[in-house]
Amino acid sequence: LETKLPKVGTTIFTVMSQLALEHQAVNLGQGFPDFDVPGRLVESLARAMKDGKNQYAPMTGIPALRQAIAAKTERCYGHRPDADSEVTVVSGASEAIFDAVQAVVRPGEEVIVLDPCYDSYEPAIDLAGGRAVHVPLDPQTFAVDWDRVRAAITPKTRLLMINSPHNPSGAMFGASDIARLSELLRDHDIWLLSDEVYEHIVFDGLRHESILRYPELRARAFVVSSFGKTYHCTGWKIGYCIAPPALSAELRKVHQYNSFCSFAPAQWAFAEMIEAEPEHYLGLGEFYQAKRDRFREQLSTTRLKPLPVPGGYFQLVDYSAISDLDDAAFCRWLTIEKGVAAIPLSPFYESPPAGQRLARLCFAKNEATLDAAIERLAKL
Amino acid sequence: LETKLPKVGTTIFTVMSQLALEHQAVNLGQGFPDFDVPGRLVESLARAMKDGKNQYAPMTGIPALRQAIAAKTERCYGHRPDADSEVTVVSGASEAIFDAVQAVVRPGEEVIVLDPCYDSYEPAIDLAGGRAVHVPLDPQTFAVDWDRVRAAITPKTRLLMINSPHNPSGAMFGASDIARLSELLRDHDIWLLSDEVYEHIVFDGLRHESILRYPELRARAFVVSSFGKTYHCTGWKIGYCIAPPALSAELRKVHQYNSFCSFAPAQWAFAEMIEAEPEHYLGLGEFYQAKRDRFREQLSTTRLKPLPVPGGYFQLVDYSAISDLDDAAFCRWLTIEKGVAAIPLSPFYESPPAGQRLARLCFAKNEATLDAAIERLAKL
Ligand SMILES: CSCCC(=O)C(=O)O
Ligand SMILES: CSCCC(=O)C(=O)O
Repeated sequence: LETKLPKVGTTIFTVMSQLALEHQAVNLGQGFPDFDVPGRLVESLARAMKDGKNQYAPMTGIPALRQAIAAKTERCYGHRPDADSEVTVVSGASEAIFDAVQAVVRPGEEVIVLDPCYDSYEPAIDLAGGRAVHVPLDPQTFAVDWDRVRAAITPKTRLLMINSPHNPSGAMFGASDIARLSELLRDHDIWLLSDEVYEHIVFDGLRHESILRYPELRARAFVVSSFGKTYHCTGWKIGYCIAPPALSAELRKVHQYNSFCSFAPAQWAFAEMIEAEPEHYLGLGEFYQAKRDRFREQLSTTRLKPLPVPGGYFQLVDYSAISDLDDAAFCRWLTIEKGVAAIPLSPFYESPPAGQRLARLCFAKNEATLDAAIERLAKL
Repeated sequence: LETKLPKVGTTIFTVMSQLALEHQAVNLGQGFPDFDVPGRLVESLARAMKDGKNQYAPMTGIPALRQAIAAKTERCYGHRPDADSEVTVVSGASEAIFDAVQAVVRPGEEVIVLDPCYDSYEPAIDLAGGRAVHVPLDPQTFAVDWDRVRAAITPKTRLLMINSPHNPSGAMFGASDIARLSELLRDHDIWLLSDEVYEHIVFDGLRHESILRYPELRARAFVVSSFGKTYHCTGWKIGYCIAPPALSAELRKVHQYNSFCSFAPAQWAFAEMIEAEPEHYLGLGEFYQAKRDRFREQLSTTRLKPLPVPGGYFQLVDYSAISDLDDAAFCRWLTIEKGVAAIPLSPFYESPPAGQRLARLCFAKNEATLDAAIERLAKL
């Protein structure tokens, strides 16, 4: 078989989750919670099924959900997108990213990604016939070097992909990032894809700098969010994309021939949940901050050095005091020999910084899970 | 906005369902049932949610479901695919088709499609940078002209897409189609994508000629099926693809970066349902045959002329005794003025046969719905 995609392997998340399963490791790798979905969501979803909401939803999402998303967006970011022409419900943030890239990137065009970045970005670009141009984030702080981004723009650049809170580092955009980004986009005719799946998981009173707050920026952006991350149901594969009408129209041209619509009964459940329990998403930062703080304190009993976590639910740790293995080898060893699965950072890079000794641990877990992991990590 | 996809409009299914809603028409357009999902499925899905099966399923599908699919396949077609390497659970048959095309079609390559064909095939091919080569089916019988298919093959041909039972016509492959197809593939190195979403909806004792029955054919085929069509839950967006290990590996390379996995609690529900109630899928032909027969009898009270329906849940009708409008105009008129939504055939063609006066009606409906439609159609 002469394949079209010889360079593409299996996503690191699948590889590490399988390894965790085989070796009965505590799985702090792939990013998902191990605690319950809010009860109301489960109840409403069950009710929607019993009420017969089991056939195709409208391709763009049911109106009640699109309206709830529009209202939530206004509440959070002071801007209400048009529910009909600017909000599209999708089968998970990954599908939205995939669709957006397919919809706008033409063969031979370039897309700027900031390394480390989520592992689906580049394959989506490749499949569209585009080319990912990698600009590294600061290897210590994971801050964007906007001069390097500017320097990477060519007449072929079509799209810039950003992600705050950032996976895997947790780094967040500040006001100055927004200022630099705005400047840049004023000078160049490119689109923006803003992956904001951790929008509600921000700590220490920091503010999530959603692109939706900024008229100039949102006028040319796909903004992608995830109910999986916000509502503890990563296996429900439902999220949304907010974009101006012209961009939403392009996204929908692909979505309609890809998954077409997402799981219909869940759409009814989210429409109700968003309106009925705003405290869920408003309190999510606090909820995860308690987990983060407890986990970081526990990490002080280990030889792993935790990096700062402004947002998201991943803790990067420097393991250089323990091992000189590269990160892929270290994470395999940690999973197989020590019973804790972690995610190496190198798959998120075109060229990982030489000598970087970082692993990613997910703390979206029950205390018992984190305790079990710490017990093992303390022995390293 | 200079768009990448200027030729792509909104899928006809969305257009006609919206129009049906606006004009309160009886919707016999988009293909979905208006009756209940089997109770066991709803119960098991609710239980799976309560049992906390709400996080990412394995990217390829949960093992229990892949095994149930393998066993069901053996029961139906005498061949048991390997659950690990040959079965992939996907977010609906459309996603599988999209992924398979992305996974194997390279820029500049050709894909043969048989017109009329489902409206997602060509956009998927275009997005991969390929070119759809359209071979018309017989305009009366919708049979494949295998000589024309053979003549359409060039050194650039990568994939042949087939669909039996056929949407929109209901035509089915017979033994001679399989013989001609086998001959053809013996002489040419191309892949096959077999869309078998209506595999269990076959009538009059006919046998579904699944590609999975034939070792030579299945060795180079993606075979796609849909729980939405088989279990009356088109809004659940879950299906599967069976392909030899090398092709499954390629499909998964795309799937993992697209929807990644499908709605997890439903996977547990289908795993149980397939094993516990085989009579559901074994009896589906009979179930729909009763609907077909009743609907066809009712149609004799109208001036619409029904074509034969060997399989699937669509009835083609010739409306030339009623109107000389083209099919798109007729279906709009029928929806807006007469209160019955139907699907025109022209969007399924590169060049619709001149003067063809056919519309597609979905009979996967309760008797009351069909009665209401017939009442209106009888007045035409
Ligand atoms: C789709 S599996 C990856 C989950 C995730 O978002 C992560 O672990 O970064
Ligand atoms: C995804 S909407 C189309 C449903 C369908 O299969 C049809 O109507 O042909």
